[in-house]
Amino acid sequence: MADKPFQHHYPDHLNHCYGCGRLNEHGLQIQSFWDGPGGEEAVCRFTPKPHHTAIPGFVYGGLLASLVDCHSTGTAMAAAYRAEGREMGSEPALRFLTASLKVDFKRPTPIGGELEIRARAVEVKGRKVVVESRVIAGGEVCATGLVVAVRAPEHLFKD
Amino acid sequence: MADKPFQHHYPDHLNHCYGCGRLNEHGLQIQSFWDGPGGEEAVCRFTPKPHHTAIPGFVYGGLLASLVDCHSTGTAMAAAYRAEGREMGSEPALRFLTASLKVDFKRPTPIGGELEIRARAVEVKGRKVVVESRVIAGGEVCATGLVVAVRAPEHLFKD
Repeated sequence: MADKPFQHHYPDHLNHCYGCGRLNEHGLQIQSFWDGPGGEEAVCRFTPKPHHTAIPGFVYGGLLASLVDCHSTGTAMAAAYRAEGREMGSEPALRFLTASLKVDFKRPTPIGGELEIRARAVEVKGRKVVVESRVIAGGEVCATGLVVAVRAPEHLFKD
Repeated sequence: MADKPFQHHYPDHLNHCYGCGRLNEHGLQIQSFWDGPGGEEAVCRFTPKPHHTAIPGFVYGGLLASLVDCHSTGTAMAAAYRAEGREMGSEPALRFLTASLKVDFKRPTPIGGELEIRARAVEVKGRKVVVESRVIAGGEVCATGLVVAVRAPEHLFKD
């Protein structure tokens, strides 16, 4: 049985992000999961809408950057909980922000089907988590991502 | 008097991009201009919608990445025309795609006002243009961008 997506563990008042906020009705509402219990990789599946196009037939790069961004900060949170041996969502809450986002577009990403973004925390150190990711369409890696995520300061958790 | 935005020089069938397509009614429809005639920098002004939020009060990083992306490919096109001594939009048409996109978030970008993205082509060489940019809110640089843009292959220009 699938666990709750990472993003559903975010505190409600920090859950309005356009990319991944459960409470942003206009947003993308992406969802991230470990790839199986104890999995090393986190996976996000997303089917772009027809208007998420770049040149005809291909997905808009800014959307891919958004998917990489939010899936990576979600993965950073999940990896940080794991590194602390804590259950996801337990207090004190962890939430990560993006310090740096890099996307390399390897080939045009075809539009029309489901994309898979697979991410891995390659460094968890202090308040920083580095996440590498791949955007996959039809089994092919179309883009790679590198995100440096930093833990959000505590004052943001005050309602 | 303001010139047409760079994006209005894109061929119609390549003008559906979610970020900058004049013909994408669901898209952001960003517009880029040289900052004055003969200007070295290109400027894009954009006011995020309230739902373009990250954590409350701040602009979603994926939106900023999208603005950097499309403003930079537009600037790449304009710089390439200029480097060839040609009028923007003249045939053969130039259109650039993103090979690599990097955004460094320096500080949270406040939501609610107009953002200015200022871009400069720092390298124009063969089919490649490198564009540096700054995202500015209220006079402060909140993020910087680095885009490697490549000229779209000719076969894309066939309707």
